[in-house]
Amino acid sequence: MINLTDYSTKAPKDLKKNMTKAKFKLLAEEIAELQHTMYAEQKHSLLVIFQGMDASGKDGSTKNVFRQCSPIGVEVKGFKKPTEEEFAHDFLWRVHKEAPQKGMVKIFNRSHYEDILIQRVHGWISEERVRQRMESINAFERLLAYDNNTTIIKCYLHISEGRQKEKLQERIDLPEKHWKHNSGDWKERKLWDKYMAAYHDVLNHCNDIPWHIIPADQRWYRNYTVAKIVLKTLKEMNPQLPTKTKEELAIE
Amino acid sequence: MINLTDYSTKAPKDLKKNMTKAKFKLLAEEIAELQHTMYAEQKHSLLVIFQGMDASGKDGSTKNVFRQCSPIGVEVKGFKKPTEEEFAHDFLWRVHKEAPQKGMVKIFNRSHYEDILIQRVHGWISEERVRQRMESINAFERLLAYDNNTTIIKCYLHISEGRQKEKLQERIDLPEKHWKHNSGDWKERKLWDKYMAAYHDVLNHCNDIPWHIIPADQRWYRNYTVAKIVLKTLKEMNPQLPTKTKEELAIE
Repeated sequence: MINLTDYSTKAPKDLKKNMTKAKFKLLAEEIAELQHTMYAEQKHSLLVIFQGMDASGKDGSTKNVFRQCSPIGVEVKGFKKPTEEEFAHDFLWRVHKEAPQKGMVKIFNRSHYEDILIQRVHGWISEERVRQRMESINAFERLLAYDNNTTIIKCYLHISEGRQKEKLQERIDLPEKHWKHNSGDWKERKLWDKYMAAYHDVLNHCNDIPWHIIPADQRWYRNYTVAKIVLKTLKEMNPQLPTKTKEELAIE
Repeated sequence: MINLTDYSTKAPKDLKKNMTKAKFKLLAEEIAELQHTMYAEQKHSLLVIFQGMDASGKDGSTKNVFRQCSPIGVEVKGFKKPTEEEFAHDFLWRVHKEAPQKGMVKIFNRSHYEDILIQRVHGWISEERVRQRMESINAFERLLAYDNNTTIIKCYLHISEGRQKEKLQERIDLPEKHWKHNSGDWKERKLWDKYMAAYHDVLNHCNDIPWHIIPADQRWYRNYTVAKIVLKTLKEMNPQLPTKTKEELAIE
């Protein structure tokens, strides 16, 4: 049983920030190399799902961990409020279309999990529907894995309530962050405990493909932790530059 | 009148490779900063079109010029052989869907121009149809510009016939490049003069939004030249981080 209260939102106290940042840079470069190989090989794909409260660092993780990669091989999909057309379908309809093709890294900035988070917290769906959706999500993630060689990394960006408030306040106080301010974030914040309860169920009932709980109070440690997981996963996927035989290299 | 034979495919002889590479790195960082601002502002978009013969460096330019940018704000669309569904529509149907939304950088790796290049060279379309398509292309590019603040940069990657041969041969000789080998490229190469004639017409008749002719024999000079144009364009677009008023920053 996963209890979020057992997990720290912070970096270990004795960890040096500057050294970690330097290590992170090397990790990001290694990630880019393996991404290139995976792109050339066209056999696997990697889906990285970022979930977390507002200001937990979904954008920042995407930007920093993958910015050394070639934009040709990396696609980002941000899931926002569904359109009218999307609402007129099952909740996975718009998600399935965004599944990564072989060779690609795809990043979901929010995902199908919102459909059992925000929707549940606001009481827009029944508990029965939540259970059904959890089963559908597990089946969907299995499908991507076995039928298209998609490896899925699920990251819950674990930020504390206090640190979130500081980061939302930065968006008011710092002119260069004004563009990120959204008064709706402050409203959702009032539902913090309900969100934590909903995340608790997500982390425990949709864990066949396991969640990584990322301490997210400090940007540098969050980036480093995500990068370590991504790199380890890519290494396990073990992509290989495909070579060709003489026949395949022949020119007509 | 643009004549490709007037344009060198090479870097100026007195240009230092190492110094140019160092300058390039700074350009790529400046591009990333302005891309971030444009993304935050959500007022403009930038469409970069790469055209050129096989191995002229469309992938390489995309990767190198934009790899410092956040993948959140940069999308790449490679146009390949149309699908059956796409063929059952007008040639701009699949392209229009890929137009960049405000705030985004979009890169076209090949584009609607293929429909008056490969299709013309092989005689799949009539000369009358070529003229019609040129008009449609000019109207389409104008539309993106005036109705969605899209700035379009069109790059023709100008590689010499001899240098192309070397680069295609590398894909046979170097195992780490095997994955790029495609015997079809060698077939298309035999139609070099026809392609040059088709490009000649593209550069002269679809030049309302002007083409940049990029010397592409050396990767380092090609990257540098593209980066200079992209940065200059972004500076002219002059994106600004949006600030908000007290009222807009209020929390309910």
